[in-house]
Amino acid sequence: MKIVAAQDFRLDRNVDYGTNEQNESVRQIVSTVRKEGDSAVLRYTAEHDHVLLTPEKLRVTKEEMMAAYDKVDRAFVSHIREAANNIRRFHEKQKRNSWMDFEPDGSLLGQIIRPLDRVGVYVPGGKAAYPSSVLMNVIPAQVAGVEEIVMVTPPATSGGEGINPYILVAAAEAGVSEMYRVGGAQAIAALAYGTESIRKVDKICGPGNIYVALAKREVFGAVDIDSIAGPSEIVVLADDTARAEYVAADLLSQAEHDEMASAILVTTSKLLAEQVQAEVEKQLKQLPREKIARASIDSHGSIIVVDSVLEGIEVVNKLAPEHLEVMVQEPMTYVSYIRHAGAIFLGPYSSEPVGDYFAGPNHIIPTNGTARYASPVDVDDFTKKSSLIYYSKEAFLANGEAIIGLARHEGLEGHARAIEVRLMLEKQG
Amino acid sequence: MKIVAAQDFRLDRNVDYGTNEQNESVRQIVSTVRKEGDSAVLRYTAEHDHVLLTPEKLRVTKEEMMAAYDKVDRAFVSHIREAANNIRRFHEKQKRNSWMDFEPDGSLLGQIIRPLDRVGVYVPGGKAAYPSSVLMNVIPAQVAGVEEIVMVTPPATSGGEGINPYILVAAAEAGVSEMYRVGGAQAIAALAYGTESIRKVDKICGPGNIYVALAKREVFGAVDIDSIAGPSEIVVLADDTARAEYVAADLLSQAEHDEMASAILVTTSKLLAEQVQAEVEKQLKQLPREKIARASIDSHGSIIVVDSVLEGIEVVNKLAPEHLEVMVQEPMTYVSYIRHAGAIFLGPYSSEPVGDYFAGPNHIIPTNGTARYASPVDVDDFTKKSSLIYYSKEAFLANGEAIIGLARHEGLEGHARAIEVRLMLEKQG
Repeated sequence: MKIVAAQDFRLDRNVDYGTNEQNESVRQIVSTVRKEGDSAVLRYTAEHDHVLLTPEKLRVTKEEMMAAYDKVDRAFVSHIREAANNIRRFHEKQKRNSWMDFEPDGSLLGQIIRPLDRVGVYVPGGKAAYPSSVLMNVIPAQVAGVEEIVMVTPPATSGGEGINPYILVAAAEAGVSEMYRVGGAQAIAALAYGTESIRKVDKICGPGNIYVALAKREVFGAVDIDSIAGPSEIVVLADDTARAEYVAADLLSQAEHDEMASAILVTTSKLLAEQVQAEVEKQLKQLPREKIARASIDSHGSIIVVDSVLEGIEVVNKLAPEHLEVMVQEPMTYVSYIRHAGAIFLGPYSSEPVGDYFAGPNHIIPTNGTARYASPVDVDDFTKKSSLIYYSKEAFLANGEAIIGLARHEGLEGHARAIEVRLMLEKQG
Repeated sequence: MKIVAAQDFRLDRNVDYGTNEQNESVRQIVSTVRKEGDSAVLRYTAEHDHVLLTPEKLRVTKEEMMAAYDKVDRAFVSHIREAANNIRRFHEKQKRNSWMDFEPDGSLLGQIIRPLDRVGVYVPGGKAAYPSSVLMNVIPAQVAGVEEIVMVTPPATSGGEGINPYILVAAAEAGVSEMYRVGGAQAIAALAYGTESIRKVDKICGPGNIYVALAKREVFGAVDIDSIAGPSEIVVLADDTARAEYVAADLLSQAEHDEMASAILVTTSKLLAEQVQAEVEKQLKQLPREKIARASIDSHGSIIVVDSVLEGIEVVNKLAPEHLEVMVQEPMTYVSYIRHAGAIFLGPYSSEPVGDYFAGPNHIIPTNGTARYASPVDVDDFTKKSSLIYYSKEAFLANGEAIIGLARHEGLEGHARAIEVRLMLEKQG
């Protein structure tokens, strides 16, 4: 892991928009499913997942979900339940009320906040099937009040139609009411446009491979989508009070995700920089996913030595990282200076996996520097607002002329006349 | 205006994604400005706006903004100021506080809500230069606490470098701190990537022509963008207590915007349907923008007769209109049933222009049925959130094993070890 000066540091960032072939294939799948419905969904499932289904077998039954509980260990059920409770409790605090303002002239102005009607959650199959992601997508929607939460996940190739029981248990714990065994671009198209078996949703969220990501981009507008995640990132900001073993382990927990992941240490301590460098090497050798983590550390890992914590925060604000760990003395005193970071972990015990799995805040966090303007997934992502305007006769008569004046300045005479016709007829009585 | 049965009604909706040539031209402009900065901006301004500028002349001076006050009538200044006050007051109610949760085990969990650092607002030139749009984009950003609000608008061809004084006054009243005379795709590229004279922003909003819309799509990811508006829409839901003159005038105020605009009446009264039909024809003939309004009414206008207000609301929920006027007896009693509408106007005096110009709620509202999942522009659009996690030693020791268990179930051993190394070393002391 290389040590670099702050002024020499530059982070390469890139988002995968797919090859032309991938884009073409996704467009083809989406438009075919849109036209042909179930039959196309089943055809693509046979072709890509090598599983033959009938329309009746698309939906995962309640019995199947319940049977999954017998296939997972008891500790898992209790851990996932505890995590779900923490996540639910945190997200409950994000709920907002509709409000109304009662004006002295008799008017009412307000904002109505409502849950979306129906949301689709994509859950990848295979090795990327993460029960924690099920919780992080489903629970905020449920807390928002979304009545229909639909999950789609590809049928496991090896297990025939079977779905990973850990995913099923997580879904049941999170409160998924409807589930289909379908994956890839065909699943996204089915959710966006509807088929005979799968009704159209209002929003699609959840992670997926490049085909899923491209399909989400393709259907955006017909439905809402969540943001498309880039590679995961961590920045650790540490002073000489931090333990090198903890810093190194946290950097590696990020690096093991993906060769494209970035793990960066920003520190005021040259000694810590060297200790972490050695410790990363030592811990790397014992990691099952050593190859992935090493590739990430070699290409995207850096240690930056700075003169002060505040100078370190300047570097952090430029990076706008997805995850920021602050392992310095009195970390709370620095929070106000951190302008751009998706999630901020304070102190030696707030290791990133604490937030990834358990503490309560969402683990779906803006990547690729988008923390400058974007936010972790939350309850707001599953609600929408409507404005409410009731203008009283008194308010109308008092302000009609101003409105006419403004409309005429924009050359919109029809707007002016909608007001004028009322002023005229109301005066006639 | 045709009268149709609810079951026969279907609304054609479409979004303009531009021709291949337009897309190609926009990509070219964006990448050239990104590479060459100011010099490219000035070249495209000369080419497209026929105005020759030097870099020093790009920025609109404070003096120019102040001088605009002498060029507009006094009534306008007082009307726009009153409107700005109303808009500010309404949006102030949307402000939210960061919060923190103090856990019994010593942990802290929270959500920090912060304004974006720097926002760019595009304001079209020529006939589409609407002072009201300046207020509706700038004020929510300002209320959110955005410190740098940058406006861009094309130099007027006829007036040389001059900018519409009504726009300048609206900008000054709304609190714009920085303004540049540049328009089109080159303005969007300059805001997204920065040039020598114009610093990069975090988000770009505001309406524009097809080139501006395509450029916003192109730069999305480098910066955030607002949604790209489709044609404007109104649905009026009325019973036999509504006056045909008001309904017709409101339908036409929408139709005059654009040939693609939709104006739809849903009514329980066959008599009102016929009266509105006649009244629309009568008012149309006196409208300066008759040609546009007539094209809109002919292609996208409809009157739908329903059996009850609740049946009418079913039609409304399917349409998910941008604007909904409810002109029935006791309109407030129906609000809970209206699930999908961007802005809801209640009663005979809440004509849409009341909201377009004056009442306070934002006039930038989701179009094209996206009110199913999207919201009017508000203060949230100019803020972003960060999660805050401080885990105490007590919390860590109590929950470490659960976190390790969940991480191992996902095959992420590095995550498990980041927890394990701490448990081990803390026990050693």
